[in-house]
Amino acid sequence: MTQFMDIHHGMQGITADQLRQAHEADLAIQEEESVYFRQAWADPDSGTIYCLSEAPSAEAVQRIHERTGHKADEIHAVPLMVQ
Amino acid sequence: MTQFMDIHHGMQGITADQLRQAHEADLAIQEEESVYFRQAWADPDSGTIYCLSEAPSAEAVQRIHERTGHKADEIHAVPLMVQ
Repeated sequence: MTQFMDIHHGMQGITADQLRQAHEADLAIQEEESVYFRQAWADPDSGTIYCLSEAPSAEAVQRIHERTGHKADEIHAVPLMVQ
Repeated sequence: MTQFMDIHHGMQGITADQLRQAHEADLAIQEEESVYFRQAWADPDSGTIYCLSEAPSAEAVQRIHERTGHKADEIHAVPLMVQ
């Protein structure tokens, strides 16, 4: 499993409820692709969402996002992490 | 305090040690600007680093990154989060 950061643009004005609903839609079907969404952050001003997951591939992440109606604009493996 | 996601480009080939050293340099002086770096993720292939912090402003985040020699290319407030 690799960590991925995916990015969605054009989400200006997204609310906390909308972010939670989108995330919960992903969580509801994620196991069908062995994807595990960990966290997501949103900037309503620039309309950007950052979404962190663990998954077997970027394609698996995208399949979940496509099925829930919010295809990612970019998906990058982020194999390195510090905290 | 607001959460911020900052992004660094052009870091192709960054190693785990280099990411950790950069993060530790930030941690060492972060309190001088009341910035708290939480996590960072790196994609050595695209050369992208994503860095999550809590801070009073984007300018405070940038001042720390500038002093440690790795100015961010983008800094976005991310007031919304789910996990």
